[in-house]
Amino acid sequence: MTNVGIGRAAVIGLGSMGLGMAQSLLRSGIEVAGYDINPDAVAKFAKDGGIVAESPADAARDADAVAVVVVNAQQTEAVLFGGDGAAPAMRRGGVILSSATMAPEAARRLAGMAEAAGLEYLDAPISGGAIKAASGELTVMASGRPEAFSRAKPVLDSVAGTVYELGDEAGIGASFKIVNQLLAGVHIAAACEAITFAKRLGLDIDMVYKVITASAGNSWMFENRVPHILDGDYSPRSAIEIFTKDLGIVSDIGRETKFPLTMAATALQMYLMTAAAGMGKDDDSSIARMIAKMTGLELPEKSA
Amino acid sequence: MTNVGIGRAAVIGLGSMGLGMAQSLLRSGIEVAGYDINPDAVAKFAKDGGIVAESPADAARDADAVAVVVVNAQQTEAVLFGGDGAAPAMRRGGVILSSATMAPEAARRLAGMAEAAGLEYLDAPISGGAIKAASGELTVMASGRPEAFSRAKPVLDSVAGTVYELGDEAGIGASFKIVNQLLAGVHIAAACEAITFAKRLGLDIDMVYKVITASAGNSWMFENRVPHILDGDYSPRSAIEIFTKDLGIVSDIGRETKFPLTMAATALQMYLMTAAAGMGKDDDSSIARMIAKMTGLELPEKSA
Repeated sequence: MTNVGIGRAAVIGLGSMGLGMAQSLLRSGIEVAGYDINPDAVAKFAKDGGIVAESPADAARDADAVAVVVVNAQQTEAVLFGGDGAAPAMRRGGVILSSATMAPEAARRLAGMAEAAGLEYLDAPISGGAIKAASGELTVMASGRPEAFSRAKPVLDSVAGTVYELGDEAGIGASFKIVNQLLAGVHIAAACEAITFAKRLGLDIDMVYKVITASAGNSWMFENRVPHILDGDYSPRSAIEIFTKDLGIVSDIGRETKFPLTMAATALQMYLMTAAAGMGKDDDSSIARMIAKMTGLELPEKSA
Repeated sequence: MTNVGIGRAAVIGLGSMGLGMAQSLLRSGIEVAGYDINPDAVAKFAKDGGIVAESPADAARDADAVAVVVVNAQQTEAVLFGGDGAAPAMRRGGVILSSATMAPEAARRLAGMAEAAGLEYLDAPISGGAIKAASGELTVMASGRPEAFSRAKPVLDSVAGTVYELGDEAGIGASFKIVNQLLAGVHIAAACEAITFAKRLGLDIDMVYKVITASAGNSWMFENRVPHILDGDYSPRSAIEIFTKDLGIVSDIGRETKFPLTMAATALQMYLMTAAAGMGKDDDSSIARMIAKMTGLELPEKSA
């Protein structure tokens, strides 16, 4: 693919998702500057040919597009509009792709700040995990002004397998992501509860995986996460803390909109129990380990 | 398919699942007697060429295989071993296919009673819904003695698309079904919570369906049930009361085995709320209607 219309891009936040996006951009022949506070993340990015920046402002200097792939709205605001922030350093008319999960209200506010600074803002949360980020096949749930979409097109073409164009104002993309995270968070908790209960009932849990994935009880998350439990491998593909955060945001929005979210609230407690038991940085399938620990159940252990 | 080894079969319980199984057997050229307390169900069965029986015993007279497709263990015990029960009327060495969702303990007890009466017992819960029942493509999660499997083979061949042979004693099939129902019940409640929340956030819920079914938030139940909500059609494909019952059984087993089932317990409350609001006999996607009613939200209504 040839690079049309983007002289230089920046990625702020080089975790597994941001790094994968940067790699996809570099593969498309786009020059990419990157910034992260974590030196290990920066080292990986440098090895892939990225330009290491000293601050968000330094990364965004002369960039036509800045992807912000940090954990929440506060961090997004800080790296864009705080001290040494990216926004003032960008080219006028450049576009911010904002990918952190956040409340729709926060997305609208940040979009307003960007537009006041003469920039376009694409509310662009992402889904698909680290592997799809690295291969340029993310799903992007995007909303924003037509100008934001057209400025962001080369970046979207490079990082995404599917781009949903969900509306012409910020906040809609964020809302879709929130609904997805509600379901994903509940389904992981349910998968962990079901597979440990199956073990308690004395079932062969490899066979349970086989039967359930072919039955009406299946979910994308059951299919994706239960193999981690069967392998006893809790190295974080996505950590418990991602969901204490995302279901926390879901709960906040429920309170703000006075909308009862019974299932999501219960699932959040299970992530908090697991974090409290010291597994916050482990894979989110660790809810199963938390239940096993609590109930004295033996789950598979990772083979050496 | 030719009928090998079954002179006559009986189906006790002619709800949508039992009726579908009876239809599949009749299509395979097997003579089928049927019994149900509901005259409407019996009339449908008669129209399809079934032999109408006056009691479980009458249906089972000289039958080599009796499928029991009632709602729980108590009903199963009553139609088999109660007054005018089927078991004493069956041919010696005949097989009972027991398809109601029940506790593994109950399945083991019923199997013991059947074996004491000189009968085989296949713990054979089913999954797949009314449409697959009618087309002979059910999934059967079966366990029992090898003799029970071989006697039941012509019936299984006729009614099932997939038969999982899960072990050589009763109770294992029941346990698999329980795990499936835990997940299915939680996923329906989560789907209803998510789609109503999406509506509350002002999203186009048809678009939410499209995006979520292609994303990590998807589940078999989200994909299957949300269209009922989008169509405003709550005619029961599977009723709320099926899950107040099945998640009730799940909860009972959790208490008996001292195993916490946080997600399942919460989902059960949502089915109970919906039943309490007068929708117990409606489609299980009515949880969305219950939430909408409670929160003053407008969901699509069925077009005339």
